[in-house]
Amino acid sequence: MSDSVKYLLEENKAPKFWYNINADLPSPPPPPLHPGTKQPAGPDDFAPLFPMSLIMQEVSTEREIEIPEPVREIYKQWRPSPLYRARRLEKYLDTPAKIYYKYEGVSPTGSHKPNTAVPQAFFNKEEGVKKIYTETGAGQWGSSLAFAGQMFGIDIEVFMVKVSFDQKPYRKFMMQSFGAKCNPSPSEITDFGKKLINEDSNNPGSLGIAISEAIEATVKSGGVAKYSLGSVLGHVLMHQTINGNEAILQMEQTGDYPDIIVGCTGGGSNLSGLMFPFLGQQLRGGKKIDIIGCEPLSCPSFTKGKYAYDHGDMAMMTPLIKMHTLGSAFLPPANHSGGLRYHGMSYHLSHLYNLGLMRAKAYGQKECFEAGVTFSKQEGIIPAPEANHAVKGAIDAALECKSKGESKTILFNLCGHGHFDMQAYADYFDNKLSEDVYNESEVNKALESLPKVA
Amino acid sequence: MSDSVKYLLEENKAPKFWYNINADLPSPPPPPLHPGTKQPAGPDDFAPLFPMSLIMQEVSTEREIEIPEPVREIYKQWRPSPLYRARRLEKYLDTPAKIYYKYEGVSPTGSHKPNTAVPQAFFNKEEGVKKIYTETGAGQWGSSLAFAGQMFGIDIEVFMVKVSFDQKPYRKFMMQSFGAKCNPSPSEITDFGKKLINEDSNNPGSLGIAISEAIEATVKSGGVAKYSLGSVLGHVLMHQTINGNEAILQMEQTGDYPDIIVGCTGGGSNLSGLMFPFLGQQLRGGKKIDIIGCEPLSCPSFTKGKYAYDHGDMAMMTPLIKMHTLGSAFLPPANHSGGLRYHGMSYHLSHLYNLGLMRAKAYGQKECFEAGVTFSKQEGIIPAPEANHAVKGAIDAALECKSKGESKTILFNLCGHGHFDMQAYADYFDNKLSEDVYNESEVNKALESLPKVA
Repeated sequence: MSDSVKYLLEENKAPKFWYNINADLPSPPPPPLHPGTKQPAGPDDFAPLFPMSLIMQEVSTEREIEIPEPVREIYKQWRPSPLYRARRLEKYLDTPAKIYYKYEGVSPTGSHKPNTAVPQAFFNKEEGVKKIYTETGAGQWGSSLAFAGQMFGIDIEVFMVKVSFDQKPYRKFMMQSFGAKCNPSPSEITDFGKKLINEDSNNPGSLGIAISEAIEATVKSGGVAKYSLGSVLGHVLMHQTINGNEAILQMEQTGDYPDIIVGCTGGGSNLSGLMFPFLGQQLRGGKKIDIIGCEPLSCPSFTKGKYAYDHGDMAMMTPLIKMHTLGSAFLPPANHSGGLRYHGMSYHLSHLYNLGLMRAKAYGQKECFEAGVTFSKQEGIIPAPEANHAVKGAIDAALECKSKGESKTILFNLCGHGHFDMQAYADYFDNKLSEDVYNESEVNKALESLPKVA
Repeated sequence: MSDSVKYLLEENKAPKFWYNINADLPSPPPPPLHPGTKQPAGPDDFAPLFPMSLIMQEVSTEREIEIPEPVREIYKQWRPSPLYRARRLEKYLDTPAKIYYKYEGVSPTGSHKPNTAVPQAFFNKEEGVKKIYTETGAGQWGSSLAFAGQMFGIDIEVFMVKVSFDQKPYRKFMMQSFGAKCNPSPSEITDFGKKLINEDSNNPGSLGIAISEAIEATVKSGGVAKYSLGSVLGHVLMHQTINGNEAILQMEQTGDYPDIIVGCTGGGSNLSGLMFPFLGQQLRGGKKIDIIGCEPLSCPSFTKGKYAYDHGDMAMMTPLIKMHTLGSAFLPPANHSGGLRYHGMSYHLSHLYNLGLMRAKAYGQKECFEAGVTFSKQEGIIPAPEANHAVKGAIDAALECKSKGESKTILFNLCGHGHFDMQAYADYFDNKLSEDVYNESEVNKALESLPKVA
């Protein structure tokens, strides 16, 4: 009982660089294509949406990108985040495995999202941007960008997936506390939103739809506003590596090194943020790690999606990106893991999956909540529904170690707390939670409309 | 910008003792009296409710009480909690004052309450107790005891003030996640609850009522169950001093020492936990500190209450305690700071107030929410409505420093986050929040029925 359960990192040892996986990949991921010409898209194609510094990060191959001092100042509010050893959970599972988790719920908005929201707001501010549009699923991203915008004095306007806007009003109020505007999506604000509402006034929305609305609003602002994405793109994943860079230093304190790294995957940023720095070590000759992405059974872009060029949004406005996709026309069914309801996957993770450098598992939401309750009873932290997928993956790995008698070291990303999701837990306890269903025919239909690329 | 904003404390430097203010008080507080005989109550009078080890802590005059190792193991999950310097808030207020805050929202339940819930569960467990009844206002205490009970395998049953049970269901679900049972109070479970519902089926409940119900249920259990209180009593306040003991070490890191310490006060435990160790230094010849308790305008036990012997509960079952009280028959009006809706005040703080060793201020809930929003926009943390009273007190003190040109050091306790209180923030933004009103005639009526003590 006297061994540590929590590994901190002193402020003066906090990493000052993000890690860029582009420097170590065995081959570069396929480039994004211009949606009209189908030719590789260059920095100028992204300029209407993003500040040039972020675009240059997207294509950089430098291994370390310096974190600007004003960003590190804001990070200090909650970073370095703690690394925990789940000793009580290990004992409860009676597993020889060691289970570690990095806890990102200590951030102001309770998730990993501010890791990229803060630098995105900073780099926009540096280029004189006054307003940013974005989308959000369960509201973790929207509230994080609202926080970041408040820190740097930038107006934030959010399109929030309607089913979450209605189910999870608390995060909407949090955006308001940080001075941001939040619209349900689909909305009457954009032409695309109006069209969808005309077709079906009960449209529950999706990340793909909300992205389309945020992009449309940005483009129509005539250069006044920029757009920001909370996952999927390379610079977003890179900002998240502050977490993995810290974890490397914290794992050194423990004397262990991960055999297995687990994270949940929606767009891919929280798993990437934790594992990229470790994978970088592997790619530079270090130890091989078993990397597992955990996705919802109802939105399984890795395990059921096709690796193909597709749009990032439903209105097909974004450049084409080669990714594991269920089709940008696919509308994921409403479940409580709003942050994982995305038709596609980061092009980096899709590439790694294709290269066999990681694998994926799909889980239903009931078994994930069960894992989350088991975890919270032992560790005292109630995970977000999204994070429950990683908890489930880690528990599964630990039980596999038990059955094989292996004492492996498992590290997973507990990417957020569930304080804003207690209604989902109540539904779980009351047996009101529907099971996730994979709708194969809807996916096949959506995949038929994939853009044709030579 | 390069100075620290966050002061941590390494696990191996975590304090191993609680501080007992009884050792340094200039005079002992007046003793509790048996409700029947009106004679000083002895340990045996408390034995039906509490395990003997906690009763002995209540009357101990040893300066340091060792924190048992299993308790320190659980504390490690979130302790030492961070000390922050509110540099952004200072700049925003343009004050020469330095503002520090200890942030207790990092605990599993998001408040300071587990500091005493964990040892209370431990000491009950040591004496073979299988079940504990308790009451809770906004649910912070109930969820904390639920967590602690889960850690040590003790059944927890909670009577939750009805207005909060209805307004704040998320904390109820949290109790459920930790395996506890939660009843709205007044309930049909106890005779006292039934009587009140018969008189008024819309009775919103109060802490005084919920305490009565929990005590009645404990007494009727025939020795099977014990009772636990989340504030007010001496052993509760002492367990909270883990926070002040840490703060002393963290303030040493900053090179500053508090001139002013601010906390919100309901029963008194969170202010006490932070300031007792500092006050102890003062009483042993150290620097004089201006200690300010911040209470709601609608339930102002310090600033409008009478210093008299009174019952701790509405059914007048508890021993008589000399405290600042609005009368145990007083029903505080519903406001969003459920944790501060208590007719009385800790006998320790009442004694200190009477000795002139601390002072108090009463604030309305609107001005407190305004302060909370100002704070969250600068510091990124959304405080609980209760904690907003301390934020308001600290901001007031900083502005006073500004008008006088004094660069004092202010330390306040940010005792919890507001993640479960976002509806209250929404009401504030929508201008739906009623202003607190001090109901003098109701208080005077309640004070008329104070027990007669020679």
